[in-house]
Amino acid sequence: MRRAAIGVFDSGIGGLTVAAEIAARLPHEDIIYLGDTARLPYGTRSPQTIVRYAERATGLLLKYPIKALVVACNTASAYSLDALRAATDLPVLGVIKPGARAAVAGSRSGRMGIAGTEGTIRSGSYQQAIHALDPVVELVARPWPLLVPLAEEGWHDHAVARLALETYLSDFAELGVDTIVLGCTHYPVFKRLISEVLETTFGASDVALVDSAVAVTTDLQQLLMERDLEAPQRAGRRSFFCTDARERFERVGGHFFRGDLSSATVVDL
Amino acid sequence: MRRAAIGVFDSGIGGLTVAAEIAARLPHEDIIYLGDTARLPYGTRSPQTIVRYAERATGLLLKYPIKALVVACNTASAYSLDALRAATDLPVLGVIKPGARAAVAGSRSGRMGIAGTEGTIRSGSYQQAIHALDPVVELVARPWPLLVPLAEEGWHDHAVARLALETYLSDFAELGVDTIVLGCTHYPVFKRLISEVLETTFGASDVALVDSAVAVTTDLQQLLMERDLEAPQRAGRRSFFCTDARERFERVGGHFFRGDLSSATVVDL
Repeated sequence: MRRAAIGVFDSGIGGLTVAAEIAARLPHEDIIYLGDTARLPYGTRSPQTIVRYAERATGLLLKYPIKALVVACNTASAYSLDALRAATDLPVLGVIKPGARAAVAGSRSGRMGIAGTEGTIRSGSYQQAIHALDPVVELVARPWPLLVPLAEEGWHDHAVARLALETYLSDFAELGVDTIVLGCTHYPVFKRLISEVLETTFGASDVALVDSAVAVTTDLQQLLMERDLEAPQRAGRRSFFCTDARERFERVGGHFFRGDLSSATVVDL
Repeated sequence: MRRAAIGVFDSGIGGLTVAAEIAARLPHEDIIYLGDTARLPYGTRSPQTIVRYAERATGLLLKYPIKALVVACNTASAYSLDALRAATDLPVLGVIKPGARAAVAGSRSGRMGIAGTEGTIRSGSYQQAIHALDPVVELVARPWPLLVPLAEEGWHDHAVARLALETYLSDFAELGVDTIVLGCTHYPVFKRLISEVLETTFGASDVALVDSAVAVTTDLQQLLMERDLEAPQRAGRRSFFCTDARERFERVGGHFFRGDLSSATVVDL
C-alpha cells in the first residue's frame, strides 16, 4: 500500500495547482491526476450532475493502485464527498474542510471572505465548514467567475485582472476581513495581485490568503504519516489523464503544474 | 410543414441572441430552442467531441415537428454541419457562412477582423468561408475568451470589459480593419462598447460589426420564403429546453433573449 499512488481529480486544469503542491512537498509519492476536461466547468452545473461526474472520475482513478483520493475541485468537494466515500474505503480528502480549518486558525479578527465559483459559493460549503469550527465568524462569500478565464488566458498580472479584483474585493474590504479563502484552484495564481490590490486600493495590508492546495497537502501529509502510508525514498512518478482536448490540457495546464504534462493520456469516462 | 417550428440549438445561452433575432423578425414562427448547458462551453472541446454533442442535440430537436434547424453556436457551426446534414433532410443553417457573406459584402477596404472562441478561431472556418468568397481579403483572427464570462456576469459596460477590449482590439486596429465579425453569439451584447473603444482608444470610427444572429436570420427568412415554408399569421410559440442548471439558464439566459424563459424544461440527451 505504501507504494500506491495519490489519486487527484479535478474538473480540469485548476487542480494541477494541488498536484503541484503535493509533488513539491511529497516528492516520493506517485501521483495520478485526472482532469475531467470534457465536462468542465463543474462550477455552473447542478448538484446532481456534479455528483455524477465526480463518481465517474473516481471510478477511473480506482482502477489504478491508489492509497488516497484528493478531490482537488472545490465544486466537487462541495457536493460529492459523501457519495465518493460511499464508493470506496480509501481516505477521500476534499479541499473545503482543510481550507476552512486554515482560515479559522489564521484569523485574528473573526472577519473572513470566501471567494469561489458560483457552484461553490451557492453550495454554502465553506460557510458551513467555517461556522462549524467557529459559529461567530463574520463572513462575506462572493463568486469571482472571471478569474478562471483570466487565469487560463495567462493574464495573472494584467490590468484587466487588477480591475476585476478591484471590483470583486470591494465587499471584502468593506467588511474589513483579515483572511480570504481562495475557494477555487485557479485563484492562487493571483495571490500577489490580490494582496497588492488590497493594499493599494483598499489600504488593507496583512490580509491572509488561504490556498486550499497548501491546506489539503498538509492534511494529506499528516494522514499518510498517521496511517504509515508514506512512500519509500524514491522519485515519485506523475501520470496525467484528461477526458478531452489534450493539447489545451498540456499547454494551459503546464502553467498551473509548473512542469511538463506532455505525457497526458485522453480517457473516456 | 408551414406550421412546423424552427429548431435552434446552441451550447448554452449565447444562441438565445439568435433566437431573439428570429423571434423579432419572424414573429409568426414557432421556435424550439435547446441550450446544451450540461456540456457547455463547446469552444474548448476537441472537434470529435463537438460533433458528438451537436448530433445528440440535433437528435432531440428532430423528435419535434421542425422545418429547419439553426445551429446558433459558432463552434458547432464550425465543426458539425456536414455531420448534421447527413443526419437529416431538413435545411441546416450554421452561423458562419451568413456571417462571412455579410462581412465580405460590407467591407470596403478588404481588411477584416474575426473574433471568436478558441475553438472557432482554431477551426479556421470563418477564415476559409471569407477567403472562399474573396481570396484577397486581409484577415486577423483572434480568440476573445474573456467576453463570454463578462457577458454572463452582466458586465456589458463595465470598466473590466472596456480594458479587455482595449487589449483584444489592438491587433485589429493595427491592421486597420473596417469590419469585425463577432464570431461568438455572446459578443453582440458588447457592440456599443466595441465601437466606443475602437473610436476613443484607436481613433477607428465606422468599423462595421457583423452580428451572425442578424445574418443567419436573413438567410432563414429567405429560405422560408423560397421554399414556401413561412408560418401563417399567428403568434409564434417559443419553447425552451436546456440540459442542466435550469435556474441559471432562465436567469442569465433571460438577458440574452430579452424575454422570459421561465417555461424551460430540462432534458437529458
